Amino acid sequence: MELVERMLAGGQQPLARLITLVERESAEVPQIMKAIQPHLGKAHIIGITGPPGAGKSTMVDKLTAQIRKKGATVGVIAVDPTSPFSGGAVLGDRIRMQQHYLDEGVFIRSMATRGSHGGLPHTTRGVVKLMDAFGKDFVLVETVGVGQTELDIMEAADTVVVVLVPEAGDTIQTLKAGLLEIADIFVVNKADREGANYMVTELMAMLRLYSSQKGSWEVPVLSTQAVNDVGIEELLEAIENHHQAMDEDDDLDRKRQRQRRQEFIQTVEQRVIGRLIELMEQDSKMMSYVDQVAKGDVDPFSAAYSLVTDQELLRKWQEALGRE
Amino acid sequence: MELVERMLAGGQQPLARLITLVERESAEVPQIMKAIQPHLGKAHIIGITGPPGAGKSTMVDKLTAQIRKKGATVGVIAVDPTSPFSGGAVLGDRIRMQQHYLDEGVFIRSMATRGSHGGLPHTTRGVVKLMDAFGKDFVLVETVGVGQTELDIMEAADTVVVVLVPEAGDTIQTLKAGLLEIADIFVVNKADREGANYMVTELMAMLRLYSSQKGSWEVPVLSTQAVNDVGIEELLEAIENHHQAMDEDDDLDRKRQRQRRQEFIQTVEQRVIGRLIELMEQDSKMMSYVDQVAKGDVDPFSAAYSLVTDQELLRKWQEALGRE
Repeated sequence: MELVERMLAGGQQPLARLITLVERESAEVPQIMKAIQPHLGKAHIIGITGPPGAGKSTMVDKLTAQIRKKGATVGVIAVDPTSPFSGGAVLGDRIRMQQHYLDEGVFIRSMATRGSHGGLPHTTRGVVKLMDAFGKDFVLVETVGVGQTELDIMEAADTVVVVLVPEAGDTIQTLKAGLLEIADIFVVNKADREGANYMVTELMAMLRLYSSQKGSWEVPVLSTQAVNDVGIEELLEAIENHHQAMDEDDDLDRKRQRQRRQEFIQTVEQRVIGRLIELMEQDSKMMSYVDQVAKGDVDPFSAAYSLVTDQELLRKWQEALGRE
Repeated sequence: MELVERMLAGGQQPLARLITLVERESAEVPQIMKAIQPHLGKAHIIGITGPPGAGKSTMVDKLTAQIRKKGATVGVIAVDPTSPFSGGAVLGDRIRMQQHYLDEGVFIRSMATRGSHGGLPHTTRGVVKLMDAFGKDFVLVETVGVGQTELDIMEAADTVVVVLVPEAGDTIQTLKAGLLEIADIFVVNKADREGANYMVTELMAMLRLYSSQKGSWEVPVLSTQAVNDVGIEELLEAIENHHQAMDEDDDLDRKRQRQRRQEFIQTVEQRVIGRLIELMEQDSKMMSYVDQVAKGDVDPFSAAYSLVTDQELLRKWQEALGRE
């Protein structure tokens, strides 16, 4: 693909256009992904998540500056749960990050999760790949909140940083399980606030209790004041240490193999179900199955069984599967 | 099924056991769902969601008491993002609701969303159905947070109540899009706190701006102090008015048809993908596809295309689809 060639040659505009194609789930996505495949795997992908108000955007901003200071390049993906019709937060991020907009070594993209394309686990993963293929040394993926979508997005990262603030007490209590499972590094931000030390201690105690299998890596709890640039250098160091530890344990390779396997299953799933739904809208026999269930005449399990054992429908489905 | 018969005859223990089977995604689920299908559609299903700390559990507690006062029966499903190894919140809910434990007209079940079975959209939907078939007049489904999983769970409800508190200012700002789309009724709880009136006004302004298509129904913004039982009667009234409005607009029927269609697609999807994953673990040819992708030799889209056009594999898959 010519657009991919131009992106690989360093074109920022082709990169931006490819990202848009991926976000919109264009029919060209398979072609794009095939073309960039040989150029993947070099970037260090860092996921940054945590509750709203934890200061993640500022953290991403400062971390970007820190990485740039060392001469490495950065791609930033801010995944925002705001749908386009409210719009505020996405715009906010863009404004906060604007000091980097003139820097050729930084590429920033905001995506919304709801009410529009983009921001879902598979589209985010596609955008990460584009930035990796483009040659970014680091890709920072920022998500707000710790819902399932955010956790799924984090699965595409090599290193997951969970940012908390002292006030988030209840939230940790409620959400600690999911967070503990995904965090490679904990950061207590706004560390000058009351309760920060207590929170660090509590997190460390929790980590000892529920020590997860992360190979030789011991999940650290760092303190930062991102807004004052305090602790950011140490954070980047911890991120790099984690990467190295994974590399030495062969965990990085294993993690990426697992990710690719997962991605493959989802890709097959999308095609299989996508074509099935097309059939549901076009084929009269298929429509009658859907109809019976929609009316409540048949339960979904019985109807599903009838459907997947209906030879005529299976043949049609199979034909649809092979169509480009 | 004998267990279903005993549940339909009013057995609380059979109901509890059936819920456990659904939560664990037992192989008997299709049979159970088929057996209860003729008994569905009578309950009014109410979803209650909002950020942590908004007082949803208390609201559910008081609403349950209010419904009981009118002589109707209630099923309560508390979906909790806490995984079993932390456990706290689920237990907390159980304790809070204990005044209802001796009441035969109330059936309460807590489910965790992560780290265990149960609490996912399709299992929650199954439990709602069991309570509906059992004959509960109202089923209250409470979720914490407004992540994608919670929004998906709310799609199974006839009436969605979004509970907020004055302090949640930022959170609304961030999440308002998703909330606006799903809310049939807004409640500002802890209405004695500072900022409550402002929040009501702001919500009403937002609703006017982004008025969604809810037929003749105008989404109201109510004030409550659940802990003091203030505003709960009005809330139940609003819930019943919403139900009636939907009924008159034929929206209830349309919504349920849409839900059943969606559920059918997901059921087919589960079977199709489940059998595919089994094949991936057993069939050597299938494994070689997965292997190539996992190693990064082939991109997932190209491999998916090869797979869905491989006649030998399709035949095996088709055979697997029909097996009970």
